[in-house]
Amino acid sequence: MSTCKVALYGCGTVGMGVARLLLAPGALHERLGERITLGYVVDQRLDEIRRELNPGQSVVLTDDLDRPLKDPEVRVVVELLGGTTVARTVVERALVAGKEVVTANKALLAEHGDELFRLARRHGRSIGFEGSVCGGIPVIAALRDGLVSDRIESIYGIVNGTCNYVLTRMLEREMLYGRAIAEAQERGYAEADPRLDVEGLDSAHKLAVLARLAFGANVRLADIPCEGISQVELSDLRYAQALGYTLKLLAIGIRRGEQFELRVHPALLRSNHPVAAVSGVFNAVCIHASNAGEIVMTGQGAGRMPTSSAVVADIARVALGSYPTEFATLSQFGDVPDAKIVPFDDVETRYYLRLDCADRAGVLGSVAGILGEEGISIASVRQHEGAGAGKQTVPLVFMTHRAREGAVRRALQRINRLDVVRGERTRMLRVEDV
Amino acid sequence: MSTCKVALYGCGTVGMGVARLLLAPGALHERLGERITLGYVVDQRLDEIRRELNPGQSVVLTDDLDRPLKDPEVRVVVELLGGTTVARTVVERALVAGKEVVTANKALLAEHGDELFRLARRHGRSIGFEGSVCGGIPVIAALRDGLVSDRIESIYGIVNGTCNYVLTRMLEREMLYGRAIAEAQERGYAEADPRLDVEGLDSAHKLAVLARLAFGANVRLADIPCEGISQVELSDLRYAQALGYTLKLLAIGIRRGEQFELRVHPALLRSNHPVAAVSGVFNAVCIHASNAGEIVMTGQGAGRMPTSSAVVADIARVALGSYPTEFATLSQFGDVPDAKIVPFDDVETRYYLRLDCADRAGVLGSVAGILGEEGISIASVRQHEGAGAGKQTVPLVFMTHRAREGAVRRALQRINRLDVVRGERTRMLRVEDV
Repeated sequence: MSTCKVALYGCGTVGMGVARLLLAPGALHERLGERITLGYVVDQRLDEIRRELNPGQSVVLTDDLDRPLKDPEVRVVVELLGGTTVARTVVERALVAGKEVVTANKALLAEHGDELFRLARRHGRSIGFEGSVCGGIPVIAALRDGLVSDRIESIYGIVNGTCNYVLTRMLEREMLYGRAIAEAQERGYAEADPRLDVEGLDSAHKLAVLARLAFGANVRLADIPCEGISQVELSDLRYAQALGYTLKLLAIGIRRGEQFELRVHPALLRSNHPVAAVSGVFNAVCIHASNAGEIVMTGQGAGRMPTSSAVVADIARVALGSYPTEFATLSQFGDVPDAKIVPFDDVETRYYLRLDCADRAGVLGSVAGILGEEGISIASVRQHEGAGAGKQTVPLVFMTHRAREGAVRRALQRINRLDVVRGERTRMLRVEDV
Repeated sequence: MSTCKVALYGCGTVGMGVARLLLAPGALHERLGERITLGYVVDQRLDEIRRELNPGQSVVLTDDLDRPLKDPEVRVVVELLGGTTVARTVVERALVAGKEVVTANKALLAEHGDELFRLARRHGRSIGFEGSVCGGIPVIAALRDGLVSDRIESIYGIVNGTCNYVLTRMLEREMLYGRAIAEAQERGYAEADPRLDVEGLDSAHKLAVLARLAFGANVRLADIPCEGISQVELSDLRYAQALGYTLKLLAIGIRRGEQFELRVHPALLRSNHPVAAVSGVFNAVCIHASNAGEIVMTGQGAGRMPTSSAVVADIARVALGSYPTEFATLSQFGDVPDAKIVPFDDVETRYYLRLDCADRAGVLGSVAGILGEEGISIASVRQHEGAGAGKQTVPLVFMTHRAREGAVRRALQRINRLDVVRGERTRMLRVEDV
């Protein structure tokens, strides 16, 4: 077996980790021999990288995107640039130049994965992406060939560590959302601009990648309803806990006959659900497979070394020759149909509704009347002690039986117009009894 | 890519599941096309299988072990006979005849894996064994290529669903051990002769298989100290719970420098440990990897369809051509050194000790004196209410700080000779603060 020469594009947090694993004689060399060599590091910050990495003479540091592609010895291009512009160009040019590609770029795959997979197949090359979703958890491999004979009924979980950290800290430390975000930023768990994480888009990217593999269908990012955690209030975490639930930001994919439910939003999980116990920056993925049954995998979803481990595993699979044959053959990587999505209004779950309302007789009746007219059946109501300074309003928490999203939204519009409802708006959270 | 013809040896619980997945047009055909065909079913019960499976004309049912091996079209031999005699012969002959082998036989691999892997490599063939450990959990694949750049620091978990079911039911339903075993047998979770499971040998088989992959070293079954659950008493489950622990039968592999700790025994895990919450017949594996960090995988460890899913995944990897190249190259499958084992007497954990002793002054002093002389430091003592009819004895539960196994065994021998100790013998359980 010949040596597998790697060109690494982007030497930031993860790139530096990958470079170190490829350069260091460690477990990789023990298991695989010296079959993988780092040939190029492509980045703008050449001096800085040279100092930090000290890669020796055999590694070419360059800011020329095309140079490694012209080297016939380079077999793998590892794209860790991030973003969807230069990264896309690099991946396209690499495939056209006959290189195998490994990437951890979920945004790129969520937005352009379908074209890129087609391009790779046309050129007889592969795209590895274990690092793009849940870094240290080998979920892509499980979906690719571990569950090859299984129909995946559902896949859902916590795929964003930043949000899970924030929600965990809010409840543990009685923190308001803003304080928890600030702490996450201080600890390096959240970006200076945390919107991609907290608004749920990062989770939607990952769900799009997972759903294609799980369901063998192409998912357009725009088809995933996406709600983040920035509106979550500490009081709702507490009320949910009192009801026996834990609030998590979930990415959810469920097969419904020929259609699929795909959505990202905060959701209440029963506190004894294995995913409910996953705290801090940890991720968790739960798969219901027709033969294998329920599988739950938890681990570090992000960070330099967990993601680097996944990226290097993909490089090794190319060096071993195993991944390209799987990519070339398995249908999920080929021409797949577009996923038919259940319209969000038709999705059925249970709901948690919190109203801040004037404490007077009749309010329960008014609200219950509207819910009844919209066909929404109430499972329980709890009145909590008022939290405001003057306590002119009291929070009322309704748990519904299964209802349709559309009906709940219509009901909420009507409830919010009632003069007994005093809060900014009624809070609604979905309850997943999975 | 040509068709991959399979010969299935043994059509019992799992074999029937595998045969059905290969014959049915389902997810496997969607993903892989019609690349895998079932050519032979080899079993003694031909009429019965023909009736139950109704496989059509294209599948040869035979009780002739050699017939499929003479067919040059057969590429994969799937060994699901169980046992280590005929199964071993079939695997050896298959490899010599140039067939790839897939097996779910942990006993065979634990006892003869090293020779069989060498034989396979010599003949340029592979042995797939995802189905041999934790059926529905893709842990073999994770260790093989998912964590290829990671040094595995430890791997441990619940790898026997029968024992986990029994322990779960004992605590949930306040059942005595014998009643829980009987229930497990009624429900098909335990064999008529449950010793292989409850005495821990099945877990030791699986640990031997996992440890070779995780640590790249050959483990002799005889080197794994093995203690089952048949001596576990309901009262200890309760006292452990009161201390914040859950009792599980664990298979444990830990790297200690150049040596390894390998052992199977009931162990107390902190009740908030992710593995502690895994109940019933579910399995769980926890891996600490140098780069990926902590990964926990849970799922159905046994049963027809979860195991069949794993077996078919291995067959698919052969059909795809990916597995044979990995088996031929990765060092864990080649000539590995024998694992150097930490002598059991030198293993350090914390300990739970329960003594039934006469309720009189001085007993605490006598016991504490012996523990002190053996260098064992006491972390806590609790005296519980007596459970016996006459309550002439009271249970005293000691939790120790970290101590060496050998010292604890010596101390126990001395304590059991004290005339204040009245029970049959002092109960000792290890506490894993992993």
